[in-house]
Amino acid sequence: MKELTLKQAQKVVDDWISQFEEGYWPPLSMLASLVEEVGELAREINYREKIKKKKPSEPKGDLGLEMADILFSLICLANHYKIDLESKFRDVMRKYSSRDFNRWTPKKQFERKRC
Amino acid sequence: MKELTLKQAQKVVDDWISQFEEGYWPPLSMLASLVEEVGELAREINYREKIKKKKPSEPKGDLGLEMADILFSLICLANHYKIDLESKFRDVMRKYSSRDFNRWTPKKQFERKRC
Amino acid sequence: MKELTLKQAQKVVDDWISQFEEGYWPPLSMLASLVEEVGELAREINYREKIKKKKPSEPKGDLGLEMADILFSLICLANHYKIDLESKFRDVMRKYSSRDFNRWTPKKQFERKRC
Amino acid sequence: MKELTLKQAQKVVDDWISQFEEGYWPPLSMLASLVEEVGELAREINYREKIKKKKPSEPKGDLGLEMADILFSLICLANHYKIDLESKFRDVMRKYSSRDFNRWTPKKQFERKRC
Repeated sequence: MKELTLKQAQKVVDDWISQFEEGYWPPLSMLASLVEEVGELAREINYREKIKKKKPSEPKGDLGLEMADILFSLICLANHYKIDLESKFRDVMRKYSSRDFNRWTPKKQFERKRC
Repeated sequence: MKELTLKQAQKVVDDWISQFEEGYWPPLSMLASLVEEVGELAREINYREKIKKKKPSEPKGDLGLEMADILFSLICLANHYKIDLESKFRDVMRKYSSRDFNRWTPKKQFERKRC
Repeated sequence: MKELTLKQAQKVVDDWISQFEEGYWPPLSMLASLVEEVGELAREINYREKIKKKKPSEPKGDLGLEMADILFSLICLANHYKIDLESKFRDVMRKYSSRDFNRWTPKKQFERKRC
Repeated sequence: MKELTLKQAQKVVDDWISQFEEGYWPPLSMLASLVEEVGELAREINYREKIKKKKPSEPKGDLGLEMADILFSLICLANHYKIDLESKFRDVMRKYSSRDFNRWTPKKQFERKRC
């Protein structure tokens, strides 16, 4: 199977949503969905980091699926606002490289490389 | 420029983080960062949907960059837990297709197609 | 029954938590719990605002209980950091009064009052 | 100064909001505000727990004010839906007492008390 690009992921979501009369929800509803998914990820991480004990009724969740739910919600919002996530992701990585490099401690081998 | 795949995006983030002694933060700290970024997206969407007036001191944000910040935080968590976002995203799209198809109203053309 | 003060609510939570060896969780875990509860509120509000259809398996939630769960999580964090919510709430109301009054449109009767 | 009850806090917020033509925002906008405030709290906690270094441009925040901002946003939502937070908070504390007591380890003195 060919690797999925971010653009294709946005297209897959758009094709899925476009089948339905309802289409994309209003942005604030999509945001609420994103928040709901982040809440589910939070529960799973608290559980995995062994602090919170689950109630017996709670099923063990799939961390990866929670993350993919977040990605889906995020892509819905991006599609609605016609945002190209790939391009913005590249911008963010550039921002981190220029702004944040000195906030952290480079490993020895990277220091040498930069000399 | 070649389109970026989700796997490559995860690799780009891993290369960036791996330069530093600090490496990935503990999961609950990465989660808190994700929550911070979701909060910034919430502010921008409220602003764009014209309900909240910004304080004069608040700069106009870039919705796409906020989304990419969320994507970055999400990828950090995925990398830490060795999760392949592409594979989980495919699972989620399959889950929606089977579970949610009847929750929404198909457009006429899609109904025909399914006959 | 006498009305509960914010200080008493903080005391009730502290008494509850102090019974257990585990005590307060680390702050980032309590934050993750708060995020989980906010996610549940988000789901209920999306449902009530009639955009999201629940899956048949999802029980109808109690909006008020979700809010009280958030209040509980917030109080846990406040107690951990020895924060007096009442005093900070008074500060916030003062901040709004001075900073935000001109961001909104006063009703006629209030305009008169201010003359 | 007399201690503020939860009911009074709800009344204070209602009096403040009722001055303005805009009144309460739509619930999903108030939720987005709550999410924004939770994001700010997340940033402060990450900072305090010494994992995240702030950018030089970021001011040191007041953890208590962030919490009070969350309380304000929560009360706005509660008021809009005519929810009595005190009553729901009492319900939640009862729920925890009955459901969660055995999830944690009672301290010795509490064990004795319960015999």
